[in-house]
Amino acid sequence: MSDLKHWKTLHTRVLLEREPWLRVLADEVELPDGRVVKDYLRLETPDFVAIVPIRTSGEIAVLRCYKHGLGTIDEQLPAGYIEGGEDPLETAKRELLEETGCVADHWKALGHFVISGNRGMNTAHVYLANDCRQVASPDSGDLEEQELLWMSQDELRRRLAAGDYQQILTVACLGLAFAYLDAPEGLR
Amino acid sequence: MSDLKHWKTLHTRVLLEREPWLRVLADEVELPDGRVVKDYLRLETPDFVAIVPIRTSGEIAVLRCYKHGLGTIDEQLPAGYIEGGEDPLETAKRELLEETGCVADHWKALGHFVISGNRGMNTAHVYLANDCRQVASPDSGDLEEQELLWMSQDELRRRLAAGDYQQILTVACLGLAFAYLDAPEGLR
Repeated sequence: MSDLKHWKTLHTRVLLEREPWLRVLADEVELPDGRVVKDYLRLETPDFVAIVPIRTSGEIAVLRCYKHGLGTIDEQLPAGYIEGGEDPLETAKRELLEETGCVADHWKALGHFVISGNRGMNTAHVYLANDCRQVASPDSGDLEEQELLWMSQDELRRRLAAGDYQQILTVACLGLAFAYLDAPEGLR
Repeated sequence: MSDLKHWKTLHTRVLLEREPWLRVLADEVELPDGRVVKDYLRLETPDFVAIVPIRTSGEIAVLRCYKHGLGTIDEQLPAGYIEGGEDPLETAKRELLEETGCVADHWKALGHFVISGNRGMNTAHVYLANDCRQVASPDSGDLEEQELLWMSQDELRRRLAAGDYQQILTVACLGLAFAYLDAPEGLR
């Protein structure tokens, strides 16, 4: 592999600040060939977790709700913002309980991923929650009304292949979960 | 399924405008229960395409490059912004040629996906480019230096399951591609 160089940030200005939800930044960056780019935009929004909840019998929980970023109804996985200083796994346990009423006996971290390679935005920490058990009623406290559905993995795979989901996060989390579940035993 | 209601946008203010890259909007929205939320933030950035290029022999092309949104080197799929009025498939063909020097004999649309369910941001149109053939040298014209690698599907599946990729888009596109490639013949 070649020796790819990093860009150098020479200066950063804050263009807009709406704490705790958003900061818009303009970087002045120097490229490896010496060119200087002014006002390269970056976004900062809070990091969050997303969870793929699986029952021992294999079904996966999805939430049907209105999403204002889409302007329509979609199915998505449980997710939520990390609150100040919280460990992402603790956020995942809290959100799973709030949004599905479940606790999980076994947790697996599937990685953490930046939302925009160009603009940054924030990081999603993705978890598989295995052997989920219902211990309470869902009560998300979110602005959105939500409907909890337990779906078979075959149905989710079919809908993923058909391009039925509308949010990149749902697609990424299901893709990660199936790559992990399909991996040979020694690689898990 | 229950009858989930949409939110109603009462008013929209532009908080920041940096054409052609970014608009930050603040919506005043009315929830189905009558509550009114002020300053619900939305982001608008240009729509783009991402491509999963596959050779007839099965290898998939990835690009190794520095990404300023991450601040580090990552591997990603060919991608690029849709230029004014362009059909997304035309953008995909242009970007495949620019970034890999390939043309593809068979194209399959895998869906289009919004980047943030809460904030909106933009839409990614994802394509599988089957039977790619090298007809030129890569010349992306992007700010980033890029290194083209052809990887086996087994290696990509292993790395996906291990959480090795750093951008949610890469994960989503590989997840979509494998769901499609693994689907029974009748569902494709």
